[in-house]
Amino acid sequence: MTTAKRDTYTPETLLAVAVRVFNERGYDGTSMEHLSKAAGISKSSIYHHVAGKEELLRRAVSRALDGLFGILDEEHARVGRAVDRLEHVTRRMVEVLTGELPYVTLLLRVRGNTATEQWAMERRREFDHQVAELLKAAVAEGDLRADVEVRLATRLLFGMINSIVEWYRPESRGADGGEIADAVVRLAFAGMRTED
Amino acid sequence: MTTAKRDTYTPETLLAVAVRVFNERGYDGTSMEHLSKAAGISKSSIYHHVAGKEELLRRAVSRALDGLFGILDEEHARVGRAVDRLEHVTRRMVEVLTGELPYVTLLLRVRGNTATEQWAMERRREFDHQVAELLKAAVAEGDLRADVEVRLATRLLFGMINSIVEWYRPESRGADGGEIADAVVRLAFAGMRTED
Repeated sequence: MTTAKRDTYTPETLLAVAVRVFNERGYDGTSMEHLSKAAGISKSSIYHHVAGKEELLRRAVSRALDGLFGILDEEHARVGRAVDRLEHVTRRMVEVLTGELPYVTLLLRVRGNTATEQWAMERRREFDHQVAELLKAAVAEGDLRADVEVRLATRLLFGMINSIVEWYRPESRGADGGEIADAVVRLAFAGMRTED
Repeated sequence: MTTAKRDTYTPETLLAVAVRVFNERGYDGTSMEHLSKAAGISKSSIYHHVAGKEELLRRAVSRALDGLFGILDEEHARVGRAVDRLEHVTRRMVEVLTGELPYVTLLLRVRGNTATEQWAMERRREFDHQVAELLKAAVAEGDLRADVEVRLATRLLFGMINSIVEWYRPESRGADGGEIADAVVRLAFAGMRTED
């Protein structure tokens, strides 16, 4: 028998444990038993904090989604030429992704049939859609190239940004979130080539 | 009892079934039982073709790796300025990825402890390394911007390319492999912005 440790969790710290386990095992592959073991407290202690693992998922992806949607409310995302707003949103997306890494990683991996998973995917699509609209506006204003279809350009831009979760580890030395954001903005908007 | 169908598989067609199951369930989560069910033949019929699931994995990732390493042997990848060689390699990577989608998808998802998985990850790193060297050479020749670190630029370029497996479906209408390759080359090398 393992001795459960005293439950000193707050909703916040319990969430951090749950997100780590979800990312390691997949949400589907995680049971309350796994969460209990990882947290070192009994299942009933976990139920004292939350109704179940779906509530933990909802809280976790909400944190990622609030971070992302919050970007769209920022002044630089609302005022000015579309291309400049898109550049701001791109930079901030990288900052939110690197700053809230486990939460955004979980959001990007969610694929499933529970109501919460469906809702998370729906909200993510809504965010993608709003960024695509910004890209479209920047093409219409003549600032972004028109020879790459908007949907395709959006997907490739998101592909570049979202792939950062595959290798970025805040604890290891190397580029920090701000440096990565600079690099993404440079490459996505001006490309790898030097000016002719 | 299900009636097993007559075994008319070739190594090629059996591999296609196995790769589909590996991509759906994950390699770890796939048993010979799953493969037998998906193929509609008995496990002993499968063992008639291959020694086990690890051989199927090796064959599948070899197909993806052969496609990718084959690019580096092409004349346009070997002769000329580094930036033009890198552009050729980028275009062809997208073509191999879209043309061999399930095999490259499997290669990109492999993470594990069997010898074959370790070998696949090692070969993939070797490919990435060779592309990074090309990028480095193009920076040294003054054709690629020097203000983004080579390792980071390589990761973001691969991120953009590899993310295509998340949404590209050859059977659905929309951009084909060649159009996506054009878009990736334009965005990666010249960026989304129109020229000033």
